[in-house]
Amino acid sequence: MTALLNDTLLRALRREPTTHTPIWLMRQAGRYLPEYNVVRQRAGSFMKLCQTPELATEVTLQPLERFRLDAAILFSDILTIPDAMGLGLEFADGEGPRFSRPLRDETDVARLTVPDMAKLRYVFDAVSSIKRALVGRLPLLGFAGSPFTLACYMIEGAGSADFSRVRRMLYARPDLLHRILDVNTESVAEYLSQQIAHGADAVMLFDTWGGLLAHEAYEQFSASCMRSVVERVRAMHASVPVIVFTKGGGQWLERIADIGCDAVGIDWTTDIGAARRRIGARVAIQGNLDPIALLSTPKVIESQARAILAAAGNEPGHVFNLGHGIVPSTPVENVEALVECVHQATGRPDFDARATYREMAENRAPRGSSRS
Amino acid sequence: MTALLNDTLLRALRREPTTHTPIWLMRQAGRYLPEYNVVRQRAGSFMKLCQTPELATEVTLQPLERFRLDAAILFSDILTIPDAMGLGLEFADGEGPRFSRPLRDETDVARLTVPDMAKLRYVFDAVSSIKRALVGRLPLLGFAGSPFTLACYMIEGAGSADFSRVRRMLYARPDLLHRILDVNTESVAEYLSQQIAHGADAVMLFDTWGGLLAHEAYEQFSASCMRSVVERVRAMHASVPVIVFTKGGGQWLERIADIGCDAVGIDWTTDIGAARRRIGARVAIQGNLDPIALLSTPKVIESQARAILAAAGNEPGHVFNLGHGIVPSTPVENVEALVECVHQATGRPDFDARATYREMAENRAPRGSSRS
Repeated sequence: MTALLNDTLLRALRREPTTHTPIWLMRQAGRYLPEYNVVRQRAGSFMKLCQTPELATEVTLQPLERFRLDAAILFSDILTIPDAMGLGLEFADGEGPRFSRPLRDETDVARLTVPDMAKLRYVFDAVSSIKRALVGRLPLLGFAGSPFTLACYMIEGAGSADFSRVRRMLYARPDLLHRILDVNTESVAEYLSQQIAHGADAVMLFDTWGGLLAHEAYEQFSASCMRSVVERVRAMHASVPVIVFTKGGGQWLERIADIGCDAVGIDWTTDIGAARRRIGARVAIQGNLDPIALLSTPKVIESQARAILAAAGNEPGHVFNLGHGIVPSTPVENVEALVECVHQATGRPDFDARATYREMAENRAPRGSSRS
Repeated sequence: MTALLNDTLLRALRREPTTHTPIWLMRQAGRYLPEYNVVRQRAGSFMKLCQTPELATEVTLQPLERFRLDAAILFSDILTIPDAMGLGLEFADGEGPRFSRPLRDETDVARLTVPDMAKLRYVFDAVSSIKRALVGRLPLLGFAGSPFTLACYMIEGAGSADFSRVRRMLYARPDLLHRILDVNTESVAEYLSQQIAHGADAVMLFDTWGGLLAHEAYEQFSASCMRSVVERVRAMHASVPVIVFTKGGGQWLERIADIGCDAVGIDWTTDIGAARRRIGARVAIQGNLDPIALLSTPKVIESQARAILAAAGNEPGHVFNLGHGIVPSTPVENVEALVECVHQATGRPDFDARATYREMAENRAPRGSSRS
């Protein structure tokens, strides 16, 4: 393992003392950044952007040129795995993801298999490429959707307010759902292990829809699968930190901490002080500013961020983040204000990685970027 | 107060011993019932149905003809109040509610006032009419949306996955949101008091979107308003039980119990056993079968319902219900199976109220109902 110039995130995830509270932001590379939209336009489609390692690298680094963040996160999508399974992922403009061949009946489920990881090579190539581009400055986070969250989209065929198809299958045909989850669990474990093998320094499981489950169903159909993913990843890469984030999982923090992960992500509805008291002696905690607070003013953002830092306390094991992804209408200067506030309150990285990445961006500029 | 032949619900809400566990179901009158759709068709529109006391009475009683339930709940909508404020409520077919004049700027907010309750007379007339039709068999539940949940729709103008407009206002212009909430609080308190004055035996506050709030914001912008509503209603009608239901509020059960209500409704994600241990000594608890479980089979429903009854224990103060409203695709026979299961497990009402309401329905039949 190469030593990183700034390994604060990794230390915090292991609950080791750090010089400052590390900060990164879910969806830190995305539509709120004008330079992202330029590259997205150039790529032609969101999936093309994910599938072109050079472009995925470029957008992954964009927020690091602007903000003094403590980590890069792979630019990709949680639905790459079911796409590689043959479900046909599509992103219509202005709409969410959609599968052209969702799992509609027993035959579809029976046919489902762990995808050939060669089909996901574009992701692993992006990881390698980003890792090279980071030149040892910052850690790179890999990620995957949780087995249950992938199943939500695979069965529903698209996003949904309540994912009633998967919840119905859970009660009516738990055998089918378990078969899907078994395939997903193996796929996610293999996918994350490959990301790590290609250079990811830590990985995160996004359980975006686990919070829709009844408490017992959460254990059976989401937590147990994530536990199995974590065990499999650990078996191959014992020292790489794993973060588990169940949106809407505030009631189940103890269960999530018991999955065997290093850190638990919490959404904005949970009191981070209470979360630290409940599980902070066992695992690190990541979160949890309401992303909608970033639509207000620097003053309000500062007050909200300071409240979170105060509640989280000064003990090791807090990674500052949002409670969900940045929304596209977020003003860039508000993100700047947030990062600045966290640094003012808790200290900042010893060196400024931004210069490195800006320089690299300059070198890329002749390729048609609109940046001066 | 007239004595009711079956006051089990009211006893359970007061945590008094009961002969059996009372059961009613959120949205028990609705689209899953073929006879509802006939009346809905006859009414011409959903709002017309709400606004015609005779028809609202007919659909309120429909589930009581089929199932041996322990309560009637007023057939109406939570958005009647903002409609009476002049926001222009519309229900396009197949879509959710929409306001033609949502609160878009400071002037709109400044102009907002508590509506003349005369504009809501159709609701109070429906309450009186239903109360008469119940002929003392069962208690009648009135209801209202919580001040915050009403504000969500008033500001967003329609339903939304994340209600980011109201959450943005909360951070950027809390003064405006407080003004809206003050008006809503007074309106909801007056509205519920009038429902009680016209015959409602208990009332319920539906805080459908409070669960979207950060923990502190929940206290400031939803719980505190509901507390104020409960206090005002209590001041006028000290003995009428109040139920408070915050969907997604499982993390905050203690705070909700502290609002001063008699019972806390819980959604399907919360472990009812844990909920009883946390707050069951202070308040009654209502819930909490996943409504999607009703899309499976009677056998699965029975197993799920029995697990809830076992977890809730035998102490007084449990009202069986769903964790959210019945979905339209629910098979009627599955609802029947659920009610039967709860009765088999815990006992049933001393008398069968269904005959009374069936007879009344027969007498209405010549008016063009398709029922034989």
